[in-house]
Amino acid sequence: MEFSIDLNNLIGIIAGAITTSALIPQALKIYKTKSARDVSLAMFIFMAIGITLWFFYGVLIKEIPVILANLISLILIFLIIFMKIRYG
Amino acid sequence: MEFSIDLNNLIGIIAGAITTSALIPQALKIYKTKSARDVSLAMFIFMAIGITLWFFYGVLIKEIPVILANLISLILIFLIIFMKIRYG
Repeated sequence: MEFSIDLNNLIGIIAGAITTSALIPQALKIYKTKSARDVSLAMFIFMAIGITLWFFYGVLIKEIPVILANLISLILIFLIIFMKIRYG
Repeated sequence: MEFSIDLNNLIGIIAGAITTSALIPQALKIYKTKSARDVSLAMFIFMAIGITLWFFYGVLIKEIPVILANLISLILIFLIIFMKIRYG
């Protein structure tokens, strides 16, 4: 079975994995400290809107890395928004 | 002079503008409150690395929205990292 990823996709997959997992430390920090006072709710709301568009952009240009990264990011961002509202 | 942007580029440009400007409220919040305790430094460092890769990805797939959005995001992220280190 021949499985080929060209350089573009490889860089996109790695970039997506890093920017998506970058959200995890922030989610963990809020969860551990139960404090999100310094975290900007506006940032995460705008990010949710923008990343939803990036997701559709990925679908339009048929680039898996863009689609996957933004889908997972969206889930993490909603988690952070939920905790920001809950812990303030 | 004929100027044409196809739907893909338009959505990418809008998505890029939103996710890039999403960083501004966080930068302003830290600057105003001089406090970044709840903000995760790890998140922004990983984001800087990932977004640098997204920038190269944009160059490789020759998509202006991806290139521009990530270049401006990088500048804002370095600003936030600087303030996080300075104000703690």
